[in-house]
Amino acid sequence: MSLTDPDRLFPVEPTVRKIARDLYESVAALPIISPHGHCDPSWFANNARFPDPAQLIVVPDHYVFRMLVSQGVPMASLGVPRVDGGAVEADPRKIWHCFAQNYHLLRGTPSAMWLDHSFEHVFGIDERLNVDTADSYYNHIDAQLATDAYRPRALFDRFGIEVLATTESALDDLKWHKMTADSDWNGRVVTTYRPDNVVDPEFEGFADNVVQFGALTGEDTTSWDGYLRAHRARRAFFKTHGATATDHGHATARTKDMPQADAAALFAKALAGTCTADEADAFRGQMLTEMARMSLDDGMVLQIHPGSFRNHSAGTFAQFGRDKGFDIPTQTNYVQALKPLLDAVGMEPSLTIIIFTLDETSYSRELAPLAGAYPALRLGPPWWFHDSYEGIKRFREATTETAGFYNTVGFNDDTRAFCSIPARHDVARRSDCAYLANLVATGRIGLTDAQEVAIDLAYRLAKSAYKL
Amino acid sequence: MSLTDPDRLFPVEPTVRKIARDLYESVAALPIISPHGHCDPSWFANNARFPDPAQLIVVPDHYVFRMLVSQGVPMASLGVPRVDGGAVEADPRKIWHCFAQNYHLLRGTPSAMWLDHSFEHVFGIDERLNVDTADSYYNHIDAQLATDAYRPRALFDRFGIEVLATTESALDDLKWHKMTADSDWNGRVVTTYRPDNVVDPEFEGFADNVVQFGALTGEDTTSWDGYLRAHRARRAFFKTHGATATDHGHATARTKDMPQADAAALFAKALAGTCTADEADAFRGQMLTEMARMSLDDGMVLQIHPGSFRNHSAGTFAQFGRDKGFDIPTQTNYVQALKPLLDAVGMEPSLTIIIFTLDETSYSRELAPLAGAYPALRLGPPWWFHDSYEGIKRFREATTETAGFYNTVGFNDDTRAFCSIPARHDVARRSDCAYLANLVATGRIGLTDAQEVAIDLAYRLAKSAYKL
Amino acid sequence: MSLTDPDRLFPVEPTVRKIARDLYESVAALPIISPHGHCDPSWFANNARFPDPAQLIVVPDHYVFRMLVSQGVPMASLGVPRVDGGAVEADPRKIWHCFAQNYHLLRGTPSAMWLDHSFEHVFGIDERLNVDTADSYYNHIDAQLATDAYRPRALFDRFGIEVLATTESALDDLKWHKMTADSDWNGRVVTTYRPDNVVDPEFEGFADNVVQFGALTGEDTTSWDGYLRAHRARRAFFKTHGATATDHGHATARTKDMPQADAAALFAKALAGTCTADEADAFRGQMLTEMARMSLDDGMVLQIHPGSFRNHSAGTFAQFGRDKGFDIPTQTNYVQALKPLLDAVGMEPSLTIIIFTLDETSYSRELAPLAGAYPALRLGPPWWFHDSYEGIKRFREATTETAGFYNTVGFNDDTRAFCSIPARHDVARRSDCAYLANLVATGRIGLTDAQEVAIDLAYRLAKSAYKL
Repeated sequence: MSLTDPDRLFPVEPTVRKIARDLYESVAALPIISPHGHCDPSWFANNARFPDPAQLIVVPDHYVFRMLVSQGVPMASLGVPRVDGGAVEADPRKIWHCFAQNYHLLRGTPSAMWLDHSFEHVFGIDERLNVDTADSYYNHIDAQLATDAYRPRALFDRFGIEVLATTESALDDLKWHKMTADSDWNGRVVTTYRPDNVVDPEFEGFADNVVQFGALTGEDTTSWDGYLRAHRARRAFFKTHGATATDHGHATARTKDMPQADAAALFAKALAGTCTADEADAFRGQMLTEMARMSLDDGMVLQIHPGSFRNHSAGTFAQFGRDKGFDIPTQTNYVQALKPLLDAVGMEPSLTIIIFTLDETSYSRELAPLAGAYPALRLGPPWWFHDSYEGIKRFREATTETAGFYNTVGFNDDTRAFCSIPARHDVARRSDCAYLANLVATGRIGLTDAQEVAIDLAYRLAKSAYKL
Repeated sequence: MSLTDPDRLFPVEPTVRKIARDLYESVAALPIISPHGHCDPSWFANNARFPDPAQLIVVPDHYVFRMLVSQGVPMASLGVPRVDGGAVEADPRKIWHCFAQNYHLLRGTPSAMWLDHSFEHVFGIDERLNVDTADSYYNHIDAQLATDAYRPRALFDRFGIEVLATTESALDDLKWHKMTADSDWNGRVVTTYRPDNVVDPEFEGFADNVVQFGALTGEDTTSWDGYLRAHRARRAFFKTHGATATDHGHATARTKDMPQADAAALFAKALAGTCTADEADAFRGQMLTEMARMSLDDGMVLQIHPGSFRNHSAGTFAQFGRDKGFDIPTQTNYVQALKPLLDAVGMEPSLTIIIFTLDETSYSRELAPLAGAYPALRLGPPWWFHDSYEGIKRFREATTETAGFYNTVGFNDDTRAFCSIPARHDVARRSDCAYLANLVATGRIGLTDAQEVAIDLAYRLAKSAYKL
Repeated sequence: MSLTDPDRLFPVEPTVRKIARDLYESVAALPIISPHGHCDPSWFANNARFPDPAQLIVVPDHYVFRMLVSQGVPMASLGVPRVDGGAVEADPRKIWHCFAQNYHLLRGTPSAMWLDHSFEHVFGIDERLNVDTADSYYNHIDAQLATDAYRPRALFDRFGIEVLATTESALDDLKWHKMTADSDWNGRVVTTYRPDNVVDPEFEGFADNVVQFGALTGEDTTSWDGYLRAHRARRAFFKTHGATATDHGHATARTKDMPQADAAALFAKALAGTCTADEADAFRGQMLTEMARMSLDDGMVLQIHPGSFRNHSAGTFAQFGRDKGFDIPTQTNYVQALKPLLDAVGMEPSLTIIIFTLDETSYSRELAPLAGAYPALRLGPPWWFHDSYEGIKRFREATTETAGFYNTVGFNDDTRAFCSIPARHDVARRSDCAYLANLVATGRIGLTDAQEVAIDLAYRLAKSAYKL
């Protein structure tokens, strides 16, 4: 028996399935380019064994545990740590049992497909996870994790990862990246400059962060000019640790391009903690344009991830903190929001701005037309909830006719679930090949062109867009 | 000849069609759970014959007559009663002819599929309705309606309805439910508590309704506390007539959780008729949270049906009143709107809030992520215009990957067209099986799991979510 | 070899493909009704040869050149004229080479399908365009353009166009239409009344335009009544040149129906240039209702094309002017926006208002329910970015179940790319037949009905809705 169907995600009509399978076979073994994600860089620096199946697969993955929570399983019984350090379930086998007992809740979700793929292809399991198989699963995985073949570096190599980007705060010392680079291992792990904590006036501890930012760079970050110089300095530092991109997660896609004196005044208010919510949003928007101008100089790719209402449940945030499955997409406007940025730098062919969205209504209405016109703008792949077979299908169907393939940038796994990386890229490659096969079968693209595009989507576009 | 294709709505590729057909055959004969709808409870109390084909099928069904109106047929010529009692077409055969002559306007709509299903499976007709067959249709149906086998209770039994919920205003005396319950018939018809006319300050006669509400319950409904006690009393009364749920139809999904003193002050303004439009909306929003708190005590399920712009045509409303096909969906925000309610009670696993939408853009962006996190929240099935093959397909494709199947609640027919009930459940069962068959054929769910889910969607989820 | 697949756009499952092909064959050769578009009427008046391949196919088509621009090709190197008359590429062969070299950027877009269709069926080419074939393409097409068979009138006849509507400003003298009508050629080219430049207070030169409007009509257009009479006069003039419709392109779908005295006062502000942005929008909205009232008298169809954010890139607009691929769709509300207009005239069965959208989210949520109720309202076909296989599929799937087929109006090619007209109608006919074939195969419509609907969608509905 097998947990995964070898023809999964391919179109069902036999001749189209054949086209999809052939396309897929030409890209299945290509190296993985992972240009944006949230793996922990200490894994590759220390190369320590992963602790246990629950800590590897359940506890850190809010895609998984929030589904159990949504059906009444208490978060604490899944071992999710409390902010106050209060007691939560500490026995990984109990957590695993709870997970196994509720595994049916994930039916039809990409998480189930990623998990089954990992179980079969990473851990060699061929029976379905349920309450009866929970123990044998646990024992089997736990035993493997104790072996060298299942340490982070070995898995990285086995997964065929050519390069993997992590994401670090502007204040990070990047010691893990240095340690990895200095080691005798050849795996390429690069960082990404994520300055939200020194850019967002509403971030916890913003003013203190900016002080620390000044200390790290030797710049006077109480002044606007010094603050901008500090960014330039940190960007240069991140580049020495492989960074080719910056990343920005704002509540809206708003951008601004105000006169420098106004920006300086707003920065002063931000430091003083006297910004209104609207001014804080304007400041974040101004900083996107500033970052884009720095990118014109240092060549770093600008990624914008807007539109998530973070920590929607006040009670859950108070008890368990950030990233607990309660981040909800909101309607996001791009047409008016991006205009200041695009008027400033959008026609620059040497610049790459990659825009993401959690609001699928913007694909055909806003983002494809914008990316199909501005030289600097590219569309990021389907993000978060939309990183799935149906999500990828909707993305391609809604964007290709207006923006084509070459204003998109391949796939991002965007994950902290290391073992799911091959599964996620596999789903993306299969989904894209399924889409292409349908185009071929309906005479919308020639087979030779499709073969070239399949490789572009699976490998080349991510590599070139992110300059990796 | 047959009016309906036995393989209708199944995927076209033969092997997938076979999977869908097999799944469907396992659920086709399951009893019907109808947990939300608008049938007239007097039908089952009196068990009188339905008057004639036009009064049964055309005149009360705004899905049908608005389509003819949209092409220039005057509403009066379809027998729709005027508010002022002015003359409208009174000859049911003439109405039926007009309907038959324009039946082609319904091509490709779910109404056509439901009607053809009823004509064939309820009335045993096998020729298509058109101007030539109008009379034979009329004669045949009219003759059958005169027989005992076509009285409401007989049809209810023949349709295989296990339980059917109607919807009554908070001021209703529920005499028809009592009469049905006291009869020797075993059919289970339950009520639902729908308090819009005493909750919405903008409802016609709100203040008078609240006075009557006090009289019915013996509470002083001029005070906020008395008003809340009156609700508790009526909910208990509705429960004695089988109610397991309340239902709320507001223009927006806004909720509030203001301090009780503020709520009391707002209630006083509402009674005085001095609320602004915004305050009226806030009051309705507050009442959703109050209702949820009462549900925590009495176990009733809370249904929210927001986002319909009622009576869009001022002229039609003035001449013909409510429910005449001029209710238009509007864009509806859930993320900010539901936060007060969800912060108050959303993490309660014992509570069930079922949220509906007429705005399909909220499926993947807002509702699936919310329902995939909060224990109290479930997604109602595709509502109204979206209760159709394509609507169900879009719903499943947009929600399953994020919310799974178990944060949904099966099917609601939500109809006042009694003879369409089997047809509507049949369309839902076929559409869900078609969706599941595609998942199986593309390796996204195992066949055994799909078989279980098919039964969940057709029967078990509605029964458990509504505690029926 | 062939550039186009004879079965392109048909469903892939063989039995459904057969149904689609049969339906298509019954409509493929029907005459083309082109009731809305932007062809240059001087082509048919002068019947001069088209200058060269680049000027025919690349330079005027913003669908095509903006895609190259989006990937960094400078607009000037594609020969697009500058506003200031500055130098741009003038060698058509160089422009053609640049186009050929970047032709892969259009993979998967409708432009590629339209172009390949023209290359094969208009010019008889059977090899794919790329850098190697660029010269042979250029030479071949250029040689053909020099022949009489490729002059505008000959192509018009060969394309099987029964009637083609162009679009002219309210100030146009329609001399080309007169010249064409007075010629010995029988082709039917009609105009359309597009008064944006005398209706929109924000249009460049609005006040001067209104003065000229008065001069043309002999009315005192400084007064509201005179201004309205001038519109009536120009509409009558346009009718004598074949016009059966008016067209209005506003930034929003807002309508107003204010008292005439208020409208007169607002008009005075508009002339004085003292309108706020909101008042300008209100004035445009008022004029839609005024136009509808005139339509009640003169029978002209009212088309509304709202929701495009024109000239999004300030720099591109300054350098190259309007219509350069930087028009971006915006979210558009119809429910509240159209209410004043619909309350005024929406129930009139003798009036036809055709509403378009660039916001696909409005299809199922707003437009289908509105068109499925109001007798005066019809849905225009998928517009601009959505005039494509996927766009047509989404339109039919989202609107048919609620509005049926008969509240839609067939196809508009809406193009200034003359040679693409047969290709665009072909794509629409194939896409609609594909949709219908799926309905037949899934039992949602009978084959006989589908055969009738196919002809309605390809020919009859456009002809009747536009009274052509």
